[in-house]
Amino acid sequence: MRKVWFNGEILPESEAKLSIYDSALMFGDMVFEMTRSFNGVQFKLREHIERLFRSARYFQIPIPFLCETVDQMEKHCLNLQEANEFEPDDEHRLMINVTRGTLPMYSDTGRVGSNVIISDFPLRWTTAGMGKLFDDGINAVTPSQRAIPAHLLDPKVKCRSRAHFVVANIQASRCKGENNWALLLDDDGFIAEGTGANFFMNDGFSWFTPMGHNVLRGISRDYILNNSVKVNEADINEYDVENSAEAFFTATPFCMLPITSVNGKPIGDGVPGQGYKRILNKWSEKVGVDIKGQIQAWDEGAKEGPSAYKFK
Amino acid sequence: MRKVWFNGEILPESEAKLSIYDSALMFGDMVFEMTRSFNGVQFKLREHIERLFRSARYFQIPIPFLCETVDQMEKHCLNLQEANEFEPDDEHRLMINVTRGTLPMYSDTGRVGSNVIISDFPLRWTTAGMGKLFDDGINAVTPSQRAIPAHLLDPKVKCRSRAHFVVANIQASRCKGENNWALLLDDDGFIAEGTGANFFMNDGFSWFTPMGHNVLRGISRDYILNNSVKVNEADINEYDVENSAEAFFTATPFCMLPITSVNGKPIGDGVPGQGYKRILNKWSEKVGVDIKGQIQAWDEGAKEGPSAYKFK
Amino acid sequence: MRKVWFNGEILPESEAKLSIYDSALMFGDMVFEMTRSFNGVQFKLREHIERLFRSARYFQIPIPFLCETVDQMEKHCLNLQEANEFEPDDEHRLMINVTRGTLPMYSDTGRVGSNVIISDFPLRWTTAGMGKLFDDGINAVTPSQRAIPAHLLDPKVKCRSRAHFVVANIQASRCKGENNWALLLDDDGFIAEGTGANFFMNDGFSWFTPMGHNVLRGISRDYILNNSVKVNEADINEYDVENSAEAFFTATPFCMLPITSVNGKPIGDGVPGQGYKRILNKWSEKVGVDIKGQIQAWDEGAKEGPSAYKFK
Amino acid sequence: MRKVWFNGEILPESEAKLSIYDSALMFGDMVFEMTRSFNGVQFKLREHIERLFRSARYFQIPIPFLCETVDQMEKHCLNLQEANEFEPDDEHRLMINVTRGTLPMYSDTGRVGSNVIISDFPLRWTTAGMGKLFDDGINAVTPSQRAIPAHLLDPKVKCRSRAHFVVANIQASRCKGENNWALLLDDDGFIAEGTGANFFMNDGFSWFTPMGHNVLRGISRDYILNNSVKVNEADINEYDVENSAEAFFTATPFCMLPITSVNGKPIGDGVPGQGYKRILNKWSEKVGVDIKGQIQAWDEGAKEGPSAYKFK
Amino acid sequence: MRKVWFNGEILPESEAKLSIYDSALMFGDMVFEMTRSFNGVQFKLREHIERLFRSARYFQIPIPFLCETVDQMEKHCLNLQEANEFEPDDEHRLMINVTRGTLPMYSDTGRVGSNVIISDFPLRWTTAGMGKLFDDGINAVTPSQRAIPAHLLDPKVKCRSRAHFVVANIQASRCKGENNWALLLDDDGFIAEGTGANFFMNDGFSWFTPMGHNVLRGISRDYILNNSVKVNEADINEYDVENSAEAFFTATPFCMLPITSVNGKPIGDGVPGQGYKRILNKWSEKVGVDIKGQIQAWDEGAKEGPSAYKFK
Amino acid sequence: MRKVWFNGEILPESEAKLSIYDSALMFGDMVFEMTRSFNGVQFKLREHIERLFRSARYFQIPIPFLCETVDQMEKHCLNLQEANEFEPDDEHRLMINVTRGTLPMYSDTGRVGSNVIISDFPLRWTTAGMGKLFDDGINAVTPSQRAIPAHLLDPKVKCRSRAHFVVANIQASRCKGENNWALLLDDDGFIAEGTGANFFMNDGFSWFTPMGHNVLRGISRDYILNNSVKVNEADINEYDVENSAEAFFTATPFCMLPITSVNGKPIGDGVPGQGYKRILNKWSEKVGVDIKGQIQAWDEGAKEGPSAYKFK
Repeated sequence: MRKVWFNGEILPESEAKLSIYDSALMFGDMVFEMTRSFNGVQFKLREHIERLFRSARYFQIPIPFLCETVDQMEKHCLNLQEANEFEPDDEHRLMINVTRGTLPMYSDTGRVGSNVIISDFPLRWTTAGMGKLFDDGINAVTPSQRAIPAHLLDPKVKCRSRAHFVVANIQASRCKGENNWALLLDDDGFIAEGTGANFFMNDGFSWFTPMGHNVLRGISRDYILNNSVKVNEADINEYDVENSAEAFFTATPFCMLPITSVNGKPIGDGVPGQGYKRILNKWSEKVGVDIKGQIQAWDEGAKEGPSAYKFK
Repeated sequence: MRKVWFNGEILPESEAKLSIYDSALMFGDMVFEMTRSFNGVQFKLREHIERLFRSARYFQIPIPFLCETVDQMEKHCLNLQEANEFEPDDEHRLMINVTRGTLPMYSDTGRVGSNVIISDFPLRWTTAGMGKLFDDGINAVTPSQRAIPAHLLDPKVKCRSRAHFVVANIQASRCKGENNWALLLDDDGFIAEGTGANFFMNDGFSWFTPMGHNVLRGISRDYILNNSVKVNEADINEYDVENSAEAFFTATPFCMLPITSVNGKPIGDGVPGQGYKRILNKWSEKVGVDIKGQIQAWDEGAKEGPSAYKFK
Repeated sequence: MRKVWFNGEILPESEAKLSIYDSALMFGDMVFEMTRSFNGVQFKLREHIERLFRSARYFQIPIPFLCETVDQMEKHCLNLQEANEFEPDDEHRLMINVTRGTLPMYSDTGRVGSNVIISDFPLRWTTAGMGKLFDDGINAVTPSQRAIPAHLLDPKVKCRSRAHFVVANIQASRCKGENNWALLLDDDGFIAEGTGANFFMNDGFSWFTPMGHNVLRGISRDYILNNSVKVNEADINEYDVENSAEAFFTATPFCMLPITSVNGKPIGDGVPGQGYKRILNKWSEKVGVDIKGQIQAWDEGAKEGPSAYKFK
Repeated sequence: MRKVWFNGEILPESEAKLSIYDSALMFGDMVFEMTRSFNGVQFKLREHIERLFRSARYFQIPIPFLCETVDQMEKHCLNLQEANEFEPDDEHRLMINVTRGTLPMYSDTGRVGSNVIISDFPLRWTTAGMGKLFDDGINAVTPSQRAIPAHLLDPKVKCRSRAHFVVANIQASRCKGENNWALLLDDDGFIAEGTGANFFMNDGFSWFTPMGHNVLRGISRDYILNNSVKVNEADINEYDVENSAEAFFTATPFCMLPITSVNGKPIGDGVPGQGYKRILNKWSEKVGVDIKGQIQAWDEGAKEGPSAYKFK
Repeated sequence: MRKVWFNGEILPESEAKLSIYDSALMFGDMVFEMTRSFNGVQFKLREHIERLFRSARYFQIPIPFLCETVDQMEKHCLNLQEANEFEPDDEHRLMINVTRGTLPMYSDTGRVGSNVIISDFPLRWTTAGMGKLFDDGINAVTPSQRAIPAHLLDPKVKCRSRAHFVVANIQASRCKGENNWALLLDDDGFIAEGTGANFFMNDGFSWFTPMGHNVLRGISRDYILNNSVKVNEADINEYDVENSAEAFFTATPFCMLPITSVNGKPIGDGVPGQGYKRILNKWSEKVGVDIKGQIQAWDEGAKEGPSAYKFK
Repeated sequence: MRKVWFNGEILPESEAKLSIYDSALMFGDMVFEMTRSFNGVQFKLREHIERLFRSARYFQIPIPFLCETVDQMEKHCLNLQEANEFEPDDEHRLMINVTRGTLPMYSDTGRVGSNVIISDFPLRWTTAGMGKLFDDGINAVTPSQRAIPAHLLDPKVKCRSRAHFVVANIQASRCKGENNWALLLDDDGFIAEGTGANFFMNDGFSWFTPMGHNVLRGISRDYILNNSVKVNEADINEYDVENSAEAFFTATPFCMLPITSVNGKPIGDGVPGQGYKRILNKWSEKVGVDIKGQIQAWDEGAKEGPSAYKFK
């Protein structure tokens, strides 16, 4: 059985449960990170942990249990991964959760104070059903639900108060057609982000991505900004997306998935773009894994269909 | 040991835990209600359950386990309360949580689908340390953190994506003085609500409470609107609060607590108002419990000091 | 052939055309009204003409050709109706358009100055395909497209700059299901109006309709406000609509159509409400026409299916 | 008599009329472009057609009649121009209109489906009275009417729902002084655009123009951005305009007109700036036409005074 | 020579000067009130003083010099008035200013701490040139300058940070025509107030005035709300003003002045309304002064023309 | 005794007073500048005067008394400085005020028209108590009071309507801890400025400062932008400040003061940053004054404690 790291101990996954009196459940008051490996080697793990520390700091959630430094937390992550033996073709998806813990008023029900939980599970769970999207592309849908602006609930803080993402996903699923993923507008009507993925587009000349203030500054987003092509941060309207030559979402589990239409209107020729392919290939080369091929192979081997939630 | 009702069974409370793969933890995707009893009789339980159903419907979370009707859910609540024997002077605080359940992609870790959890604990936990506030009053602090407007994350839906309430509470605790509770402004700068309590004020002539659209339409708020004095719903500025004759917060656990200053400036004479007292007394008479006396008695009997979180 | 009243003359309808250099076409710079008859008698014609005058005044479009007074305009309308002989079971739908006329710089192409055009056509054109909606009800869809607030383009001015209504209709048509009509939110996220119809709902106790400032103050809306039940003007959220007991749209051609679901979620029992029926019946009695029956009869007699645009 | 291209045929201009039941008239639901020639050679015609296609795509208006490609549409334009013989000193102003056509419900009155109309008329009509502005300059007036933000009605879509431009022009004409042109603020209070012209200013060191998201991305604007000097896109306040060293409007018919005061306060020395002159001269050289001289010559030859509408 | 009351002493007016190091001059950090008499008897003096105390409290400016109570301040006002002998036909206009005083860092230049100054001058100064407006009426102009919303700088606090009123007045003076007074829109585009006067209108059926949250809650406004006709507080658009039957401004010095046009468009018949006259007459009767006649008489007797600033 | 330059004359400072009927006092209608010397040599005096002229122009306040040009005004400033003999270790802080003068309606009380006042006082007054902040650093507090956006009251115009700065300062002083200075958010929730100081931060890689549109474009800000390191203008969230490596305020009197915590959370290591020190040292070298040392020396020599207002 898979193992988890829980407040300093490595335990069976089935014991990784939180009290209903934990602040995580009372207020969505939990910060987290999710990572992935390539050929079993964690990718940008330190960057994820650094962002976790920033999120915890924002909410003033202490991180105890000898996890105060990036080095310490990294070591726990790697130890846990070693404790879990997966299928040879699997990748390790780590999830680190930090909660404020059971609220003091409920101290009668158990220990008070932060909980730190690191879990580890096969990446193929998360990417189930995404294989075909590498070829078919996503239909980005701009739902009525808007992103919450940073001054009200900062998307740069990776926390669990994201019920509005669920609403956006439900709205996107109401639209006609297949492969609908929500692409949220911010409160000024500019493109913000997906419900767990960043957006990039090319207008035929240059690459663009939304300004960094009203979106999660994703690790994958940063990787593309720093390692591939020149990208401009800009205020983007739905009109711009419609008239883009190509577009894609980026997020940790799948790296990059092409967007081939927006609200049902084809983008470019309606197929994954050449620029998208070049960046993805470069990424695959860098990490030594055929990113698309691996996910498609998992899907082909899967008995069941795609899961209801596509990513996050 | 206390019992909980969990997906149709009555279990020991220590078993009331949620998987870290539950949507409740992944997105703050859980709706809930919290009630209280007077002399052991639940107050407005049906109204709470009806609101729970509205919240679940908004997020499209199915409610299985023979809880589809108000009657059914009410019965489970009352059964649970009977299963728990409290101290004779305790009141029963019920908490009903409904989660979307473990996300399908994590089906490998357990059952997929909604979880319904009813728990029951002594109200004195929640009200610990509030006894003196009936006499001293609260200092309402308007933090920099604003309420999220209804079209972005509707406060009328009682859900767990409330991390901004935690931020507001932290900000309020940073201010000088004692008994600071956050009083949030909405995004237009009007008074919205506390972090789990509704606001009322009297300008010397009439009672006012914020418009119903950007706040939780609390059951206690409704009770006051329908059972005591005439109250006007209005757009209220901080200026109005400063110049009010008296003010109070209302919420289920404590019913009503006086606000005697705002941002350190005394309201009226700086002591609980006569109107406040009249409404609270009438309420006490109606339910046959000395609301203030009961909470103060609990506090006097308590070994430990007030808890860090005042209410919710 | 049907006749039109054009700048003082009664002409065949095929001659009712506007120059492509008319300001109406260059800027959407045309004000208008559309009315209907009951048993051949125009309903609230004077109210429509008065609103037309207010619209023209707002845009400072002069109204020449002996139409300066309500009496004069009314006379022209009635004269035109007499000049058109319709099927006995038809009703007369009048459309009055006033344009600023060919812009002076294009004076070379024709007469400069306002154009006034009154046309008359069978109401059954407009209501084609609506018959079944009286029984099935409309699925109101809140699109991503928001209403334009009054200070930017006042909806109280009935003009032809309504391209955003077309966008909203397209978005509504993209959603799954049948009978989708757009129900726009205003820029603060409150319910505004349909694309040519006003919205009413009942929360189980009282009737509500959006505040009068960000919507067209429809003649039908006024009729209901003044002639049937007590209605509160309020800021309404999508949450309120979801939890309403019943709801309907009102507009001149069909008077009232029930809304039986919103974004796919049933309203009340998912069938036309009792309150709706009472108001419609009272209206039918008052005007001596079975409003629902007449439109359904037209649909049954029609050879072709419903038109692409449902109303306006 | 001048000719127009109408749905595939070349007809006399007087036949270029639209039914009052056309969606263009019902909703301002028509997209368009207006171009000009230099020495009879169309300027940036392909760029205009490409933008027309983007506008039509945004509103989902099909373009039939063998106009599906830029090549086809360009050919029709050039054929039409050849069919029209103008005075030797005239330039050809083409206007391409595409409407959604008569709404299906009015099918009884004629053909249903898109209408494509290309018309051609002397540019001197549009520029009548503008000659003196090259020397005197425009007084830019910031009216109370604000620009509509892109997420409500995208200015990048060149459509006919522009009644708010008429309101802005009326407000500008109410101000004291001569040569008043409206310069709209966007809804955040930043400079947006004129009612059919883009704005540029120089702060004494660099050139600035408003961000591309809340304005029409004019072809002339693009020409200046790409062919003359370095220009920064920025959020500009009225304060910045007041303190600019020079400023100008740019639009297709007149290319560039100097702004010499704003709200009555002189800009720089109150005369057309040196930078303005250099850019205009370079443009004149590039196209082989003395842009300013040609328009002033037309004005001198004109019998009548300037038209009421200055441009568009 | 006129006398002033200055920090407890009655001095010649020429000595009523403030140090340039006073916070009033450094930050506009001064609260104030201005009153008037009828037949030498101060009108609503206590209400003015109460509001002054609320303003001072909002800014936390202490009021020393035996002015801590309404009774004390009232006595000083009346004493000052007695000390000043005016022409028999004059009325006394009192101005009470309270500043935070010289900032501590400038203590080297003089006394630190609040300054309280009461001055007294002939009302005819303020009303100079207003006489004819009782007959001709005001042209209300909605300038580009918007009112500052209450959460940024509360208009209910009568303070000296009102530079935006000066901007609004300058903009109004730029418009064509006579008797232009600014009528500011708030930041949502609703009618707010004049630059020192409240707005009322009648739509032919009922009286309306803007909601109390984004305007100064004027003493004259309150007097009308409480003593004459029923008035509704509402969100009012420019469209509503244009189509009103009559309208007026109210403020302390002139009580009520009719608005006979808005942005140059006549209101009603373009003359002072009957309702306006009735309310003004009732007011005149109540206070025993022909309000209009008195001001017109002063104007007739004046040597010089109207002053540049109409009121405040 | 210190001298002032008042409307063309050099007078004793005690005579530098303004009538209570001056528009400066009635509306906060006064523009100003404050400068400092290094070793007695005025720093950026011309830039300050140029900005003063822009401010006066914005409010349309004429500047008479032979101050129409920068040269003239500069000469008066330098003449005044010469007329004042300070302690050898003092620096000259000049304050230039320009008011619209006594309003015409109060002409009876004195001269009508602009007043120009230049005063000169020891800089040590302003910096009193700031010495220790160079080592301890400031705790930046984001108050509930927001900055007023430029389109409502432009912060680029250095005027005296700044009562909201006083409110922000009061709110900051209410927070726990020492050395609290307000750091205002703008109305979109982005960092704007202090109450008289600009903000800079370094994210570990680059320097950032808020966009120039919603802040005073300070002379010190400009000096840093142009003379030291590369700085990016950006939309900055509170999250960014929390996670910055270092930060500082800049303003004329103290040049630069380090910010070592924000809302009580340490920035970087909680001590003044290395980058800050480098820029300040470079500045000190450039002007030949140990900026920090000089201010600390004044504080050590001071008899009294720090003044209540820290800067401006």
